[in-house]
Amino acid sequence: MQELVGSIAAFLTTVAFVPQAYKVYKTNQTKDLSLFLFLIFSLGVFMWLIYGIMKEDSPIMIANSITLFLSLYILYKKISIDNSEKSI
Amino acid sequence: MQELVGSIAAFLTTVAFVPQAYKVYKTNQTKDLSLFLFLIFSLGVFMWLIYGIMKEDSPIMIANSITLFLSLYILYKKISIDNSEKSI
Repeated sequence: MQELVGSIAAFLTTVAFVPQAYKVYKTNQTKDLSLFLFLIFSLGVFMWLIYGIMKEDSPIMIANSITLFLSLYILYKKISIDNSEKSI
Repeated sequence: MQELVGSIAAFLTTVAFVPQAYKVYKTNQTKDLSLFLFLIFSLGVFMWLIYGIMKEDSPIMIANSITLFLSLYILYKKISIDNSEKSI
């Protein structure tokens, strides 16, 4: 039962970032997003990925690889859009 | 060593939400935030909290209680601000 709850939790906290990544992709609007949220969160998810590799735990590795990709995409868009708005 | 990496990862993915909660508190701007990110993420973090309770693992319980509070705060502001803008 615990493993089921853990898997559902991992799945939800991973896919949760898909709608935000999609919204940023469609709107190119990132003003209200906190740069530090995605900077610190990406670093934290990267650490979870290292943790999963150390423990040879594939669910942790897979979930955090996906979340890292989504979080870094949003971070990249946030930085590039903010910079382009500054240069106008 | 693994426990250290896991604790740093848990700490970072918890405190990451503080700057976003602060930004929402200060600016009252949530348009660019995805409602589904904070809805699904809150649900996922709640499941991690249940997981921590089942495993009697206090670091997991503490980290996810803090993250749940921050995520629900942002979700509440997102819903209330979006609704108030619709009623104008």
